[in-house]
Amino acid sequence: MKTIQETGVAAVAAKRRQAKLTTEEKNNILMSAAQSLRNNVQMILDANKKDITNAKESGIKPSLIDRLTLDDGRIEGMADGLEQVAKLPDPIGEVINMKTLPNGLTVGQKRVPMGVIGIIYEARPNVTSDAFGLCLKAGSAVILRGGKEAINSNTTVVNLFRDVISSMGYDSNFVQLIEDTSRETATAMMRMNGYIDVLIPRGGAGLIRSVIQNATVPVIETGVGNCHVYVDESADIDKAVAIIVNAKAQRPSVCNAAETLLVHKNIAPEFLPKAAAALREKNVELRCDDVAAKYVGECIPATESDWATEFLDYILAVKVVNDLDEALEHIALYSTGHSEAIVSENYTNCQRFLNEVDSAAVYVNASTRFTDGNEFGFGAEIGISTQKLHARGPMGLKELTTTKYIIYGNGQIRK
Amino acid sequence: MKTIQETGVAAVAAKRRQAKLTTEEKNNILMSAAQSLRNNVQMILDANKKDITNAKESGIKPSLIDRLTLDDGRIEGMADGLEQVAKLPDPIGEVINMKTLPNGLTVGQKRVPMGVIGIIYEARPNVTSDAFGLCLKAGSAVILRGGKEAINSNTTVVNLFRDVISSMGYDSNFVQLIEDTSRETATAMMRMNGYIDVLIPRGGAGLIRSVIQNATVPVIETGVGNCHVYVDESADIDKAVAIIVNAKAQRPSVCNAAETLLVHKNIAPEFLPKAAAALREKNVELRCDDVAAKYVGECIPATESDWATEFLDYILAVKVVNDLDEALEHIALYSTGHSEAIVSENYTNCQRFLNEVDSAAVYVNASTRFTDGNEFGFGAEIGISTQKLHARGPMGLKELTTTKYIIYGNGQIRK
Repeated sequence: MKTIQETGVAAVAAKRRQAKLTTEEKNNILMSAAQSLRNNVQMILDANKKDITNAKESGIKPSLIDRLTLDDGRIEGMADGLEQVAKLPDPIGEVINMKTLPNGLTVGQKRVPMGVIGIIYEARPNVTSDAFGLCLKAGSAVILRGGKEAINSNTTVVNLFRDVISSMGYDSNFVQLIEDTSRETATAMMRMNGYIDVLIPRGGAGLIRSVIQNATVPVIETGVGNCHVYVDESADIDKAVAIIVNAKAQRPSVCNAAETLLVHKNIAPEFLPKAAAALREKNVELRCDDVAAKYVGECIPATESDWATEFLDYILAVKVVNDLDEALEHIALYSTGHSEAIVSENYTNCQRFLNEVDSAAVYVNASTRFTDGNEFGFGAEIGISTQKLHARGPMGLKELTTTKYIIYGNGQIRK
Repeated sequence: MKTIQETGVAAVAAKRRQAKLTTEEKNNILMSAAQSLRNNVQMILDANKKDITNAKESGIKPSLIDRLTLDDGRIEGMADGLEQVAKLPDPIGEVINMKTLPNGLTVGQKRVPMGVIGIIYEARPNVTSDAFGLCLKAGSAVILRGGKEAINSNTTVVNLFRDVISSMGYDSNFVQLIEDTSRETATAMMRMNGYIDVLIPRGGAGLIRSVIQNATVPVIETGVGNCHVYVDESADIDKAVAIIVNAKAQRPSVCNAAETLLVHKNIAPEFLPKAAAALREKNVELRCDDVAAKYVGECIPATESDWATEFLDYILAVKVVNDLDEALEHIALYSTGHSEAIVSENYTNCQRFLNEVDSAAVYVNASTRFTDGNEFGFGAEIGISTQKLHARGPMGLKELTTTKYIIYGNGQIRK
């Protein structure tokens, strides 16, 4: 097993070779990697079975075991994902803003690989395949550090990819897995300055927090979403009901699901009973402030902590507000800056909401559930950034690259 | 004196007010702030005199006292800088990549303020004024934390700005100075998650290192430049001499000055004696490897550490290499990723250098000294990023902003 230091050195050597790959070479690797997953389904399932057995023995909860579990369909999904990435345009090499300065220097910004990307993630073995595919296409070497629950699955998948890469005559260190899943290796990875150019954590709030507290390498913070839907006085009630039901209940376990519903006091008497009925039909538990409680029938009183909680479950906090300003204040106070939506027919209020809400994605009359690289047409997604540096919102291939200035001169010196 | 916590709370309140300013309002504040500097030259000079006296008493070295010192010309330069920023186009509000998806959602990325920007810097009081101007124009509140040597100058300048802002009816917390210059406040500032959206250190390698090690807020690493000039076999010798003399000696104390000269072995016999003579005329000390030493006459033998040192002085390390590959290897090993130049008439070598050198700015046949926001036509500069996230190379107004997705729907929900 390589040490963290050896892994870093190998990645730095690999990144220089990888940056020279043509688009065709990268696509060939991706297609071969997809084929290798398909050719080795049984081997992957056997490894995954070990992980599941271990997980059950350690008493891990069923939802986590579900995320950990692979089957034929999920492995086909991983292979298909790699092929989809092969079909995406190559982001590398584009030159933007090229111009000639008065002194004759020609200056442009060229899109180039990051170099080495680190990904820390939890139980889902499909992240192993997705992250490899995106980082390879983006021209970067990748160091993966998955959760200990998925170590057998991850090792098997990464070894298949490394074998493919070697067999094609390239450096298998284009992708490396940190096989020691102790907390120490995770912390060491967060401090690999000089080796890792960017570290992206994918997982729950605890993982994200740990990375932010411990990392000294540049990090892109992803994923925590305490998302709000605000139903304005002038909202179309049918649209508003459909949007809050979709935003809350279509898939409650994901970061772009809504957690709090804010309702203008003048529409609450008509809107809230209908919304509550539709949400209860989806088994959503409502936690309401005093005013909202009057319109929704039996419900749980909302506490201060409910406003700040990402439930990731069939639970919705509900509050009636006096006006748009109060809604904006509430969002400014409690939002994690992921996705918020207004439902309104009032032009000025829609524009104010778009302008004043400081989140990665701000919606008018649509569900927050659209905050997703595939939905936005990126073709693939490595995660959703909730920070303001480098990338904000869904991150596709372009967000996994950087730029450098290239300058063509003919002997210019500075006066 | 406000605590760090109070400063953060005040900045978060101010950022929401500031984000609503029109371009005209921001420009009016900048013009008034410039006028206030001009109207209070004597007050600023008096405060600066205290700083200089204190600095001399604590035995601070002359170069630092020079950086600390203000005079009429430097104060006029600060005022003029604010007026220049007022004249620059406002980066806020631009919408890029707007498109309508198949489901009818219209999605675009809107350029918006960061929110709260933190700047940690050292002795130069003019950074106080420059950083305020750029952050204000970029729509963000700014928390400044200058060096203790300049505390009287900085306090005076910031109070003038705050008075201007208040007198115009705005929130004076658009700009705040942390007046307690202890190490504790600097560390606390680096950990103001939830308050500071990005922290930019401006100063020497020690400050940058401390921020990288301690910060939990997103950071843009700036400024350390171990820059290389490579003179290829086919170089035009006159151009090559002019470029290395300019890159090394035009202003050796700055980050884009060259620190190592690499020379192809076949051009070394003719080029190096001429280059050495021209460099010595500028009082540059040469530290050479064995081969280079043969051509430059009397010189100091280069040690391993010379290749890795940002001298920021009239010192140049010189090495003869066998070919472009060896030059690229040397740069990959020792460069800090700031600026590197090739001098060559060979097309393929120029393209390889541009492609393979992984630095913020890569030059063909020009001096590294051009890596600068003003030279690149940005009109102003907050620093030079040597990291790959968010901004790479000189950072102007645009790099002080972020984007958010805005999405216009008409009731869309996710299937």
